[in-house]
Amino acid sequence: MLRHVVMFRWTDDVDDAHVAAITEALSALPASIPSIRAYRFGADVAVNDGNFNFVVTADFDDVDGYVAYRDHPEHLAMIDRLIKGHVAERAAVQFEAGA
Amino acid sequence: MLRHVVMFRWTDDVDDAHVAAITEALSALPASIPSIRAYRFGADVAVNDGNFNFVVTADFDDVDGYVAYRDHPEHLAMIDRLIKGHVAERAAVQFEAGA
Repeated sequence: MLRHVVMFRWTDDVDDAHVAAITEALSALPASIPSIRAYRFGADVAVNDGNFNFVVTADFDDVDGYVAYRDHPEHLAMIDRLIKGHVAERAAVQFEAGA
Repeated sequence: MLRHVVMFRWTDDVDDAHVAAITEALSALPASIPSIRAYRFGADVAVNDGNFNFVVTADFDDVDGYVAYRDHPEHLAMIDRLIKGHVAERAAVQFEAGA
């Protein structure tokens, strides 16, 4: 299994309504991108100080499945509409997560 | 389910042997920390430029399960021994990841 993880620290203009729109847009992606095996995302619960604001974890069979997601037009469209211009910091890793 | 995600960008002194030691130390933690429900970690596979170097994803029933892990003596000991002083950048989120 190939797991993709990406975290964001938002710019100050990102309010709860914006995060709700991101959540709604992400929720729609698995129906359109069949290589997604599991898709979990959400806002930081504020247990610790200094955390990033939001994370997406997505599981695929392999790198090809991830790349199909990364480059999928619906994914790119939601990034253009809701993410681009609102990111203060971004951190990402793709890793081999076992069976 | 509460999912904890933490990413690291290592300092330049962290070589493959050091990463192998981190991987070995992490592999031992689930046997000692019963609140861990799933534990996956690994180095970035270098599909994309600019990524962080390493990620840990850990699943718990709830925030209490995560805090038991965060504050567990074996976890803190491996951080002291292998992580502290070797982190150029760190990014973390804990989020409610559904059922």
